[in-house]
Amino acid sequence: MPVLTASAAQVLAAVRAAAAPAVTVAEAAAATGLSRPTVEVALDRLAALGLVGELAPDPGERRMGRPARNYRFRPGAGHVLGLDIGKYKVLAVLADLDGTVLTTRRIEVDPALPRKARLAAARTAARAALTAADLTPDRLWAVTAGTTGIVDREGRIKLSSALPEWTGLHLARSLGRTFACPVLVENDCRLAAVAERWLGVARQVDDVVYLLAGMRMGVGVLNGGVLQRGHNGSLGEIGALPEIGWNAAPGHLVDDPDAESSEQAVAALIAAARAGDANAADRIRRFLGAITLGAATVALAFDPELVVGGGGFSRADDLVREPVQHALDTLCPMPPRVASSTLGEDAVALGAVRVALDRVEAQLA
Amino acid sequence: MPVLTASAAQVLAAVRAAAAPAVTVAEAAAATGLSRPTVEVALDRLAALGLVGELAPDPGERRMGRPARNYRFRPGAGHVLGLDIGKYKVLAVLADLDGTVLTTRRIEVDPALPRKARLAAARTAARAALTAADLTPDRLWAVTAGTTGIVDREGRIKLSSALPEWTGLHLARSLGRTFACPVLVENDCRLAAVAERWLGVARQVDDVVYLLAGMRMGVGVLNGGVLQRGHNGSLGEIGALPEIGWNAAPGHLVDDPDAESSEQAVAALIAAARAGDANAADRIRRFLGAITLGAATVALAFDPELVVGGGGFSRADDLVREPVQHALDTLCPMPPRVASSTLGEDAVALGAVRVALDRVEAQLA
Repeated sequence: MPVLTASAAQVLAAVRAAAAPAVTVAEAAAATGLSRPTVEVALDRLAALGLVGELAPDPGERRMGRPARNYRFRPGAGHVLGLDIGKYKVLAVLADLDGTVLTTRRIEVDPALPRKARLAAARTAARAALTAADLTPDRLWAVTAGTTGIVDREGRIKLSSALPEWTGLHLARSLGRTFACPVLVENDCRLAAVAERWLGVARQVDDVVYLLAGMRMGVGVLNGGVLQRGHNGSLGEIGALPEIGWNAAPGHLVDDPDAESSEQAVAALIAAARAGDANAADRIRRFLGAITLGAATVALAFDPELVVGGGGFSRADDLVREPVQHALDTLCPMPPRVASSTLGEDAVALGAVRVALDRVEAQLA
Repeated sequence: MPVLTASAAQVLAAVRAAAAPAVTVAEAAAATGLSRPTVEVALDRLAALGLVGELAPDPGERRMGRPARNYRFRPGAGHVLGLDIGKYKVLAVLADLDGTVLTTRRIEVDPALPRKARLAAARTAARAALTAADLTPDRLWAVTAGTTGIVDREGRIKLSSALPEWTGLHLARSLGRTFACPVLVENDCRLAAVAERWLGVARQVDDVVYLLAGMRMGVGVLNGGVLQRGHNGSLGEIGALPEIGWNAAPGHLVDDPDAESSEQAVAALIAAARAGDANAADRIRRFLGAITLGAATVALAFDPELVVGGGGFSRADDLVREPVQHALDTLCPMPPRVASSTLGEDAVALGAVRVALDRVEAQLA
């Protein structure tokens, strides 16, 4: 990833912010307040880096003298990779600097996979996504990986209950051996919250709580549009309190939440409840009873405008959203709105793409 | 409050940031990168506003030619007022632009006072603080008032359980009729959190939860040094959930928490517990039992580095701090440190001063 001079950064921002598809030197000078010679030097440098391209002059346009040169942003100058390294799958999403997704690669993994094999699967998915786009790893400017557990500022996994063998892993350093660009690591629920505000149901919303609810419970929080991490990176982890009831919640859905087949069992349960099966409906009712106190607690604690339900919650919107909204309306003096995630299985990887893009933007600013 | 040009703001910042007590035009030009003539114009403007003063040349210093003129910041150019409008008292703290407290005025008020009389008491305290400093109200550049309840972005009290007659009051507008400068209103626990980070036990700490614990329970949160409000201004209000147990907590300390004498009763209880009274110690133990779940919940939710106990908590540090720390160590995988407020009764008004100063700084920047 290049480092820009202040004037090149200003010119790049002006080119990207322009309403027109391309801008002239004069327009860039007017937008930045920089002199024309300074803008010309900056554009030459940006063109050399591939960040801007010159648009061929319109052949239909006949004017006296040399036609004005037109410059436009080239989103393909660099790329970012978002990784979701989960219990059952690894997902790699490759995007350009505009955030347009170019390729995605998904690999199913065994939940009992040892640390090294799970890392290898992540690398394989990343390589496959790059290959499919005909790119080499050196074209990446930033990589962000999302995973389950408490992640500290350096990208070390301090604690993961869903992937016990993951605890203690310095994931940023491990992935840093594969990628030459900056590698960031973040908790998966947090990335899902970021993705929902970027592309999902939380667009235009600044205060958001993402609530993962299903076979796993988790929380991601944005306040004033800013991702909240806390001192140890464990903000939102109220599920550690037995009184909150979240640990017991998955057991209401299926008899053995730790079984490999539990996700399929939940899918079958949802289908049965929809078909009118009283036993299935009762299991979901008990699950909702078990998550309500915690949902109200995070709603009261963070006072969001919107709670976005993810995981099993979003796959059973018709069965769970209204009851959860009703519970919050009852328990909170100023209840938030409740919506289901629309990004589904891609939320974490897309949030990872957004965080990687933010890293690139910060360096180009 | 004046509005500065960009160069005047830069020069003012340079004068304030200088290690030396006063700076010359050349030094200000070097610090800002502005030309000497621009700096001279800026200093003239700042001097006309009273924001900088010229230091008399050192008579001991004999040099060839005209001595260099020295400028220093004048913190008395403007003033701010912090108000704490509580159930039992109104406190006004007057400070200069450096945050140095000039005068304070405290008025005891009846908890049953109607809305208008409580507002009148606040105005009286404010006027008295100004008079004692020989200042007129037009010398105030910003006023912040702290009070109990949920306060929205406009300074309206949406809900106050401690002062029911306060609910619905547009406090910022009411006070705006008295003061010509900007008036901000904030929840008292939040201001206490700000004050603890400014002058109290939370100095140098970015992630702080202030926990008011005694006859009233409340929470104020700073994340990354930034005050958190939430969408409705009700962030942290987990006490609304009966399961948290906070509503019942004061009843463990005294038989009638709503009695006017309850604060004195708590003081007597603390004294008795210190003197070895088993019944008093038992009451405090039951109180701690009632606040523990909520304390752990906010600690897990916000993941602070430090929890600052205020209210009765801070007056009984020797009796309550260790048990609360022990409870959090037991319940939280990554427990925060627990400390008692050192600002006591002044915390809210001092936090109000800090928020008013921030308002002034933002306009002078």
